[in-house]
Amino acid sequence: MNRPSAYLDHAATTPMLPEAIEAMTEQLGRVGNASSLHAAGREARRVVEESRETIADALGARPSEVVFTSGGTEADNLAIKGMFWARQPRKRVLISSVEHHAALDPAHWLADSQGAEIELLEVDELGRVGPDTLRAAIERDPDGVALVSVMWANNEVGTIQPVHILAAIAGDHGIPFHTDAVQAIGQLPVSFAESGADALTLTGHKIGGPMGVGALLLARGVTPVSVQHGGGQERDVRSGTLDAPAIAGLAAAVRTAVKEQESQRRHLTALRDDLIARVRQAVPGVVLNGDPADRLPGNAHFSFPGCEGDALLMLLDARGVECSTGSACSAGVAQPSHVLLAMGADAAAARGSLRFSLGHTSTQDDVDRLIEVLPAAVERARRAGLG
Amino acid sequence: MNRPSAYLDHAATTPMLPEAIEAMTEQLGRVGNASSLHAAGREARRVVEESRETIADALGARPSEVVFTSGGTEADNLAIKGMFWARQPRKRVLISSVEHHAALDPAHWLADSQGAEIELLEVDELGRVGPDTLRAAIERDPDGVALVSVMWANNEVGTIQPVHILAAIAGDHGIPFHTDAVQAIGQLPVSFAESGADALTLTGHKIGGPMGVGALLLARGVTPVSVQHGGGQERDVRSGTLDAPAIAGLAAAVRTAVKEQESQRRHLTALRDDLIARVRQAVPGVVLNGDPADRLPGNAHFSFPGCEGDALLMLLDARGVECSTGSACSAGVAQPSHVLLAMGADAAAARGSLRFSLGHTSTQDDVDRLIEVLPAAVERARRAGLG
Repeated sequence: MNRPSAYLDHAATTPMLPEAIEAMTEQLGRVGNASSLHAAGREARRVVEESRETIADALGARPSEVVFTSGGTEADNLAIKGMFWARQPRKRVLISSVEHHAALDPAHWLADSQGAEIELLEVDELGRVGPDTLRAAIERDPDGVALVSVMWANNEVGTIQPVHILAAIAGDHGIPFHTDAVQAIGQLPVSFAESGADALTLTGHKIGGPMGVGALLLARGVTPVSVQHGGGQERDVRSGTLDAPAIAGLAAAVRTAVKEQESQRRHLTALRDDLIARVRQAVPGVVLNGDPADRLPGNAHFSFPGCEGDALLMLLDARGVECSTGSACSAGVAQPSHVLLAMGADAAAARGSLRFSLGHTSTQDDVDRLIEVLPAAVERARRAGLG
Repeated sequence: MNRPSAYLDHAATTPMLPEAIEAMTEQLGRVGNASSLHAAGREARRVVEESRETIADALGARPSEVVFTSGGTEADNLAIKGMFWARQPRKRVLISSVEHHAALDPAHWLADSQGAEIELLEVDELGRVGPDTLRAAIERDPDGVALVSVMWANNEVGTIQPVHILAAIAGDHGIPFHTDAVQAIGQLPVSFAESGADALTLTGHKIGGPMGVGALLLARGVTPVSVQHGGGQERDVRSGTLDAPAIAGLAAAVRTAVKEQESQRRHLTALRDDLIARVRQAVPGVVLNGDPADRLPGNAHFSFPGCEGDALLMLLDARGVECSTGSACSAGVAQPSHVLLAMGADAAAARGSLRFSLGHTSTQDDVDRLIEVLPAAVERARRAGLG
């Protein structure tokens, strides 16, 4: 493309870091199944185990606590279904109402077909689960709770949850606590040990690593029932050939994302605050969703009254600005965001919203380009909405 | 390594084809989530859909019948658990006794925790499921059968199953038939339409594609319950961000593997027959397992009486020959092969066996190297076994 363009959808997927590409491609030219006993197999195993140590070191975990998966969706499925089954006969699944579909949908399936009772934890108007909300929900029947799942930071509106406090409340009752930290790593300090969580989801392609690989961190003594059965490669908790090239790429990305987290936070926060201030100035009536300050450094999320989000997205895309109506991960179906609805927005405001998300390649030019084209696009989307 | 070496473990994993590496690495440098609506997302979607068409064309399927997964293990889990759940209240799961763990273990889990009744289909001494065996098993209670699963070709001993006949028998009773064709593609002609199967598993890294990606072919009208819930990216049957780079690599590998299948078959068969004849000549008392002639072109599998397979494997490895005691995919635990036991071997013969598997990079030198070092290694392993 010769026209100026701006990729403002890093929360959907972010470009791979050069070091992650290098670590991965180096392995693509090799052969060896990490379960094989011969030299080629042992070499693949070495790559996997060094990657496991790198990830554990970076995230405050033990190497034995890292279970590799095919990505965040599988890790969430393993945590939620696996811990539910492991904790039978307990039926209650307490999960925030603003989770990603990768966590909500397994929980709903457990309710539909496995006898679970889901209880969606309400959030306040900023999207936050209050400690009292969780405490009250647990205390209605603590012995019946199989698990609690609350994400570290929200993928749509960027709200940061008080996971340390929530994990402690669950821990006080001996209930395992899962958190999806897919959006948090690289933007916020994340220590598995300090979080108090029993299970934590991460994925490669949100932090500069490859797609198709992620991990579930699992505290010692927490053993979900497997959701993918077979050779038992990962401690019998997860089966499937270990994808050494992708795992090497994931480790490189985690290392860099964590090492550069503080400088990224500063860089992204400055860009984001500029973006928010200028969008508010440029578009009368726009509403910022989520916490004005205490949000993911890379996240800005607005409702544009009188617009359809999809129409506005396509108008911006035609001018080289790529963003999202919310979660890119729900099959392209236009539905009002369950996150905004849970925060108390009406359906029209939920449909008329856009997320601009920044990442490691974002620059001031990206923000400038957005501000250059946004007012006219909003005006046109509003006219279309009224027509 | 400067010493001569021979990789004879292609059935565990085979080197990536240059065209697969190229197709994949080209995508690693791009950004875009195939579920995103903007230009970068649409470009990723185009890569995925073109790959889907390539795979469908090569394997006699429709593009809409290709469901991408993270590999063979996930595809087997989806087929077996998903079809079981979709076919409730039917409880019977008929599965061959020589399946890969990726198929057997989901079936066992269904029996342990979901009310399934597994029936292991017996095999003859060559490892083959007889049509009468399947017919008799079905007819004991046809209406109670949820699904039938029999692999296309066995990963350990290379036995080729009469899948077309078995699929037709299941089809006569309206029972869905799944086949794991992970080892067959690229070595045997595989047409999904002609096979009569309702579900077929394939994976990248056994055919020169990347690890961490595979697919389940699903005939129209066959809709398993999802085993990985979330955004619903693959027709609501499978969730998780579509891994466009790996999918592009998989498509390149499938295309080449299928295009070159006949020349590979001839090449591998000649090498394999030479390997078998010379191993028999060089090692007194060795027993070839599986069908002497009608077996996977790349597979040779022997029992070495008086040897422990693991010991022999390590002795060969020390001399640069890399092979397997059977399935590399079972977590490095030394157990007698369930495949050989099902074929009627005793536990000692099962433990004293090795698989030599050939693939697209195999040469006459590899066979020569094996024959050069095998006799002394066997002698040494026998002495160790007796000591």
